[in-house]
Amino acid sequence: MSNLQVQLIKKPDAKYPKVNDVFQVKTASTPTASQLKDGEVFLENLYFSIDATMRVWISGAKTYVDPVLPGNTMFGQAVSRVLASKSQKFQKGDYVIGVVNWTLYQIISDAKLHLVKRGGDIDDLTGYSFLGPLGISGLTAYIGFEAIGKPKEGETVVISAAAGAVGEIAVQLAKTYYKCKVIGIAGGPEKCDYVKKQLGAHDCIDYKNENLSKRLRELTPNGIHVYFDNVGGEMLDEILMHITDHTRIILCGAIATYNQTGEPYKVKNYPRLIIKRAVMQGFLYFDHPELFKPGQATITQMLKQGQLKIRYDVQNGLEQAPNGLAKLLLGQNNGKVVVKAKADQPKL
Amino acid sequence: MSNLQVQLIKKPDAKYPKVNDVFQVKTASTPTASQLKDGEVFLENLYFSIDATMRVWISGAKTYVDPVLPGNTMFGQAVSRVLASKSQKFQKGDYVIGVVNWTLYQIISDAKLHLVKRGGDIDDLTGYSFLGPLGISGLTAYIGFEAIGKPKEGETVVISAAAGAVGEIAVQLAKTYYKCKVIGIAGGPEKCDYVKKQLGAHDCIDYKNENLSKRLRELTPNGIHVYFDNVGGEMLDEILMHITDHTRIILCGAIATYNQTGEPYKVKNYPRLIIKRAVMQGFLYFDHPELFKPGQATITQMLKQGQLKIRYDVQNGLEQAPNGLAKLLLGQNNGKVVVKAKADQPKL
Repeated sequence: MSNLQVQLIKKPDAKYPKVNDVFQVKTASTPTASQLKDGEVFLENLYFSIDATMRVWISGAKTYVDPVLPGNTMFGQAVSRVLASKSQKFQKGDYVIGVVNWTLYQIISDAKLHLVKRGGDIDDLTGYSFLGPLGISGLTAYIGFEAIGKPKEGETVVISAAAGAVGEIAVQLAKTYYKCKVIGIAGGPEKCDYVKKQLGAHDCIDYKNENLSKRLRELTPNGIHVYFDNVGGEMLDEILMHITDHTRIILCGAIATYNQTGEPYKVKNYPRLIIKRAVMQGFLYFDHPELFKPGQATITQMLKQGQLKIRYDVQNGLEQAPNGLAKLLLGQNNGKVVVKAKADQPKL
Repeated sequence: MSNLQVQLIKKPDAKYPKVNDVFQVKTASTPTASQLKDGEVFLENLYFSIDATMRVWISGAKTYVDPVLPGNTMFGQAVSRVLASKSQKFQKGDYVIGVVNWTLYQIISDAKLHLVKRGGDIDDLTGYSFLGPLGISGLTAYIGFEAIGKPKEGETVVISAAAGAVGEIAVQLAKTYYKCKVIGIAGGPEKCDYVKKQLGAHDCIDYKNENLSKRLRELTPNGIHVYFDNVGGEMLDEILMHITDHTRIILCGAIATYNQTGEPYKVKNYPRLIIKRAVMQGFLYFDHPELFKPGQATITQMLKQGQLKIRYDVQNGLEQAPNGLAKLLLGQNNGKVVVKAKADQPKL
C-alpha cells in the first residue's frame, strides 16, 4: 500500500487558482495497524468532498477551523473505510465520515468520525451521496432554510450559485418541499438551463450575461422573501435593494470574497435591513445537530421519490484534488465536486 | 385658539442640520369641532417626540412611512388631549397617543390613535413618559432585546449612542433586567460619565476621544454577545471585528448614515457574520405588538422601583421642534428630546 499526501506549500496569492500552484502531491509513508493506540482507527480514505470554504482555510485566516499553513497536510471531509480498529465505536469494515487528511491512508482518533454504514460494500454513488445530499451540502441547504430562511408556501426564494453543490439542493428543497417560487442565479446559459430544466426553478438569472437588477425587478415584483446567499459581495448588495418586509437572508457562503487579497468588497445597502426589518444571518451546519436527522430523512425521501437530482463532478484520484478545488473556485465545476481517492483505471 | 404648523420647505442637503433651515413655522387656521365627521376626533397636541429616524422621513426616501415632501406638514408621535369627539373609541377629555401633524390643533381619524389615559389631568413628566420609556424609546429597547438580542445572564452587551433616548433605556434593561455586563459607547466624557455613573454601565467608551478598537479588545476579552446598534456605519464595521460565535446584532438605527448625502458608508467586515454564525437584524417596534404589554409592564416596574433613570431634553414650544431635531442629529441633546407644544411662560 503506497500512500499519497497533498500538502499546502505556500499561501495562495491573487493569481490563485488560475496559474499559481499552492499544493504539492507527495508519496508519503503508510501507517500500519501495529501503530494503533486505544481509541484510534486505521482508515483508507475513499471519497473526498471539495468545498469552497477550503479557500478560506488555506488563506491563513483564523476561522471556525485551524488554518492550513504552508507545510501542513490539507484536510477535508471524506468517506473512509476502517481497515483496523482499536476503537469501541468502530470495527473493521465500517464506513465512516469525518474531516481527515488528504492522504490515502491515515490513523485517526475515533472522536472525529461518524458511522455511515456498517460493513458490506459501498459504491461510488452511495459514497458521494454521504458527502453531498446526505452530507454537508444537503444539510447546509436544509438547515439554512429551517434555522434562518423559514420559507412559507408561495413565497419567493432567490438562490445564488444555484447550480452549485448547495445551491442545486436548495433550489429543489425550495420548490418541492417548501412549495415556493424559486429564482436561481447562476453564471452562464448552460448553468441557467440546468437550474430551470433539470432542477425545476421557475426562472434563473444569468448574472454574467443579464442585468441582475432589471431581471430581479421583473421576476420578483413583490420582493424577495428568502435569499439563500452562496456568493456574497456585490450580488448581496444588489439583493438588498430587492428585499421586502421581514426578508430572511441566509448567509451560507461568500465565494465572491474568498479569493480576494486586496480590499474586501464593501456592502453599502445594509441600512435596508433596518427599513425592511430584515434579518441576515450566518450559519454553519454543524451548529444545528438537532436538525441532522430530520434533514437526512427529508432528503432521503426526496431522493427515493426522484425529486432530487444531484450532479457530481468527479476528480479521478487524490492527486487531482487541488485541481478540483481550483475548478470550484473558478466556477468551472458542474455540480458537487468530489474526489475518488483511487483513480479508476482506463479499461483496455 | 390660534394654531401653529411646522412645514418642510426644502429637502435637507449636506449642510443640514448645521446651518441650513429646512422647516418653517406658520400660523395656520384652527379647525373647529363642527367640522368633525364620524370616526374623527378634535385634538389638542400636547407633547411631541423627536426621533432620529425623522431625518430619513424628510430625505424623500421611500421607507416604512410616506416621506415628508417640501410643502407637507411635518408629523411625529405625540400625546394629545381629545377636545371633541365623533368617535366610538374616544371621548372628550381622553389622552391619546399617535402619529399626528406638527400643529397645535388637528382633526384626525380615530384609527390612528391609542388611548393612554381616560380623562383627568396630565402632568409634563407623565406626558413625556408615554413618548419615552412607556412609548417608542422604551418599547424599542425592550423589543430589540426580546425579539433579536435575547441577552442571557452574564453575557456582554455593547450599546452605541448609550446616552441617547433608546440607548439609556437599553443600558439599564441590560444591566438590571437581563443581568449582563454592559459596555456603552457615547461621544464625549460628559455622556460617558452619565452612562457609567447614572445608568450603571460597567464601562463606557468615548468614541470621540478613545481608540474604539483598542478599548473593545480590553473591555470585551471574550467578544461581544449582543450589540445594540443605534449608530451603524463605521462603528458597526468595527464591532463586527469583535463579535464572537452566535453574536446577535440588533440593528435599531443608523444615525451615522442618516445625514449622508454622498456615497453611503460601506461595511467591509460583513463576512464575519458567516465565520461567527452571527445574526444582524433590523426591526421596528410596531412589528411586535405582542410585546407591548410585557414591555410596558417590565418598564413600569423598573420605573416604580427607581431602577430606570430617564433624562428629557425639553424644547419649550412647538416652534422649537425643528431645533430639537437638529440638536438630536448633532448629538447635542441630553437624553430623550421632547417638545412641549405650548411653551411654559417665564414666571414674573
